[in-house]
Amino acid sequence: MSQDLFTKHRATLEQAIETTRRRDYWSPYPEVPSGKVYGEEAAASGQAAFEGRLNERLALQQPGRVAEIGNEVSPYGFALGVRYPKSDLDQLLPAMQASLPAWRDAGPETRAGVCLEILQRLNKRSFELAHAVMHTTGQGFVMAFQAGATHAQDRGLEAIAYAYEAMSRIPQESRWIKPQGKHEPLRMEKRFHVVPRGLALLIGVSTFPTWNGYPGLFASLVTGNPVVVKPHPATVLPLALTVQVAQEVLQEAGFDPWLVALAADSPEAPITKELAQRPEIRLIDYTGSTAFGNWLEQHARQAQLYTEKAGVNSVVIDSTDNLQGLIRNLAFSLSLYSGQMCTTPQNIYVPHDGIETEQGRLSHVEIAQALADGVRRLLSDADRAAELLGAIQSEDTVRRIEEATRLGEVVLASEPRRHTRFPDARMRTPLILQVAAKESDCYYQERFGPISFIVATDSTAESIERARESALAHGAITWSVYSNEETVLARMEHAALDAGVALSCNLTGGVYVNQSAAFSDFHATGANPAANACLCDSAFVANRFRVVQSRRHAA
Amino acid sequence: MSQDLFTKHRATLEQAIETTRRRDYWSPYPEVPSGKVYGEEAAASGQAAFEGRLNERLALQQPGRVAEIGNEVSPYGFALGVRYPKSDLDQLLPAMQASLPAWRDAGPETRAGVCLEILQRLNKRSFELAHAVMHTTGQGFVMAFQAGATHAQDRGLEAIAYAYEAMSRIPQESRWIKPQGKHEPLRMEKRFHVVPRGLALLIGVSTFPTWNGYPGLFASLVTGNPVVVKPHPATVLPLALTVQVAQEVLQEAGFDPWLVALAADSPEAPITKELAQRPEIRLIDYTGSTAFGNWLEQHARQAQLYTEKAGVNSVVIDSTDNLQGLIRNLAFSLSLYSGQMCTTPQNIYVPHDGIETEQGRLSHVEIAQALADGVRRLLSDADRAAELLGAIQSEDTVRRIEEATRLGEVVLASEPRRHTRFPDARMRTPLILQVAAKESDCYYQERFGPISFIVATDSTAESIERARESALAHGAITWSVYSNEETVLARMEHAALDAGVALSCNLTGGVYVNQSAAFSDFHATGANPAANACLCDSAFVANRFRVVQSRRHAA
Repeated sequence: MSQDLFTKHRATLEQAIETTRRRDYWSPYPEVPSGKVYGEEAAASGQAAFEGRLNERLALQQPGRVAEIGNEVSPYGFALGVRYPKSDLDQLLPAMQASLPAWRDAGPETRAGVCLEILQRLNKRSFELAHAVMHTTGQGFVMAFQAGATHAQDRGLEAIAYAYEAMSRIPQESRWIKPQGKHEPLRMEKRFHVVPRGLALLIGVSTFPTWNGYPGLFASLVTGNPVVVKPHPATVLPLALTVQVAQEVLQEAGFDPWLVALAADSPEAPITKELAQRPEIRLIDYTGSTAFGNWLEQHARQAQLYTEKAGVNSVVIDSTDNLQGLIRNLAFSLSLYSGQMCTTPQNIYVPHDGIETEQGRLSHVEIAQALADGVRRLLSDADRAAELLGAIQSEDTVRRIEEATRLGEVVLASEPRRHTRFPDARMRTPLILQVAAKESDCYYQERFGPISFIVATDSTAESIERARESALAHGAITWSVYSNEETVLARMEHAALDAGVALSCNLTGGVYVNQSAAFSDFHATGANPAANACLCDSAFVANRFRVVQSRRHAA
Repeated sequence: MSQDLFTKHRATLEQAIETTRRRDYWSPYPEVPSGKVYGEEAAASGQAAFEGRLNERLALQQPGRVAEIGNEVSPYGFALGVRYPKSDLDQLLPAMQASLPAWRDAGPETRAGVCLEILQRLNKRSFELAHAVMHTTGQGFVMAFQAGATHAQDRGLEAIAYAYEAMSRIPQESRWIKPQGKHEPLRMEKRFHVVPRGLALLIGVSTFPTWNGYPGLFASLVTGNPVVVKPHPATVLPLALTVQVAQEVLQEAGFDPWLVALAADSPEAPITKELAQRPEIRLIDYTGSTAFGNWLEQHARQAQLYTEKAGVNSVVIDSTDNLQGLIRNLAFSLSLYSGQMCTTPQNIYVPHDGIETEQGRLSHVEIAQALADGVRRLLSDADRAAELLGAIQSEDTVRRIEEATRLGEVVLASEPRRHTRFPDARMRTPLILQVAAKESDCYYQERFGPISFIVATDSTAESIERARESALAHGAITWSVYSNEETVLARMEHAALDAGVALSCNLTGGVYVNQSAAFSDFHATGANPAANACLCDSAFVANRFRVVQSRRHAA
């Protein structure tokens, strides 16, 4: 059965590997939540499946169950009431270790087949997963379907592709024949085994549990490491459903289902620190706050750690020949999911004496006003605003918006909105502030959520230098630049090489700086404090397994 | 010129990549120190070059020179008197950083061409390097020529091959076209840049400065990182000559020569801790003691660290059909370079009720005696013994041999020997002790040097379990097993997968457990405490560079 799974999915895997080398567009998981693609029943049955989960126990197959846990509340304003098993780590982890050798010895092809089957089943459940993501993270439904389901599946497949290719590089056997002049050559037979590091831990993030979680989950699993999934207590369901699907496929393929297991906790009794320091845990994937990421780096020393922490993303506006496109594009980027993306711009650097546009020279105040107007216009339709903004995932972010108001001159005030379908949703429109570069350094700190600064500088040269310094000191995942001059674009690109930040130039159309496409865009670089890893590259997978060889004289 | 170097060496690079995939035998650097291969003058002129270095200043091109340093003494009994420039780190490191962008922007092909040219010039100077290695490490001349020159060049090339392949995986450009149903597709042009991590630090080891040093040196350099070479103060010359050759080629190719620079120190004023914690240092390759490796892991947190520390290597003897071959092979392994290899066996597990051989059943005492006799026989010829044993690199090792004598019953006493060519050489023959597995745990600690234990166990099952436990707790780089039973070999191989140790089975011919061939054998696994990395695999290179992308709407 498990060898059949490899055969079944082989073409997808090969296409994925090929696409990561060409880096053009491809996806096997259609992003359109359409009945034509997923079946006319899919939308309704996915929603029904999600609603059927509410106020119920989620069934998982894992040893050491000692209690039930779960206290999720949708940012759209209702309690989910889903209850998850809580396993005793002293029973769960040894059971996972005991299951490791069979998974290891099954080899890369079998493991890849199982992982690809898991992704295919997750894809079939994309509507259900989209509701689960929407009602834990606060994303709008279409975004939850895309970023939370299909694009996350893409990122999982991408990680499998890198890992499978890396494992395939190692031959299973070789014959080594060394000439010895006039004497008989030396002849050795050698065998090479891919072995996992041990248990892997995925620490889920509250805003993008699947998109940020699947790469580490699948990279670890396909290389032979059982995976403990520790979701954020506010965002359990998307990863719990993922664990359920993984367990189902693993069991059908003849493996212990708890090779992927859930370790849910609560804010009152967190277990992440204990888990992360367990000697059995040899790999950790983490997305979340800088503070906890730094704690992990200090304390979880027995494990190989892959982190995505916070960054301060910058936009440098030097000039444009398409002001309307610039404003439309940037307003969308600031509004999408209420700025709760690690790729959302925070600091927009504009020279205080203004910029050249096709409408003539505009002062930085005029640019700020144009952007504020652009956001207002974008959010003027209530339905569209509801879908675009989604809901604020955490009450902390609401507080952060309120506190940020005094950090600069308010260009656009943040306001509560009433969601057109969920009246109790926690909605806020973007806050835009204006500061002078030299009069404050408050904008160098990450302000997670829909909070951005128009930072007035003396020149584009200063804008670039401030973006560079800020990325080197505090990290950054995205940069955006607008200029009519190739020399300015080149200078910004050169600064991006120094600071290790992905750059988007003159985005005025239907691609946004927040978006990062699997198989083509590298998400984060690992080259500045925002992240020590990248989704996805060879470094993300190569150290999740090791090679053990044996050799003997050839017959 | 530098593009020419890539063309010149391209076939070698491609063959190296291909061989690391097939893992069969190949080397472009002939290991035989023969006039037929290297030219009839090579031996004499290499020796003359080495002798010409003695009591002279070694010329290097690097800024910040503030003093001279150097106090090497050959283990063969004379002072080298070579003096090296000592650079002020506050001048040297910023200069190296300033040289980084040109080296980065030159791209992978140019950098690979330069690195391969460096290796080719090192190969031409193999006789000189062999003398330098011999008279710092104590290796015999032929071993110094092979392990210290040509095999080290192989390992350097292997690292370049892995790194170049990893960089080549990333396209320089791509065009991403995403269909939008009835609308025009989204079209983006993307560029991808390989960027280095920063400055790299190579911390050299006293016994195998080049073999253990070249992989990290070349892996870092070819991926764009300038390299600070910090040799062991007792073993400066081999790496200083390497730096000199690298500087010569870099300069000819139009780069700053101090992209590779020497940072020599003295035992009285060590600089490694300061260097390793400098914020500019982002990569560290280290081979040496476990204690200092652990210190680096704790303190050099700003850098990506690749370590090879100490391990306790095990041999499990279950049975054999070629006792003479076993004894001859093992006696050679224990004697080669006086056991000063990280691959030398330390613990030889034998059941106390003996083993089956083609000469009938032999008790563990008889096996111990046979091994002692085998070593005596091997070393009975004074010239051969001198070449095979070489000299003891460090006075500490002599002390360690003396102290070890009381750790068990002496089966073979260690004795001073008078070298046939260097009467003042520090020579000692191997010490073999016998202990009962359950009566002591002294053999679980690494005893670096020609010190080994015959450990009597209740059974082969116990032997394997002790080897496994010891490797998991204290690390191991090599295992060897002798058995006539495939089931025992399989059990040992299975234990090797758990413990992450490379295994050799039934070595009775001309291949020894200490030997690890570039392009074919993985040296260390990174999967137990002996090392966190392997020479060489994808994980060794993948994290030495990152990728920065830029994208824009396609025209």
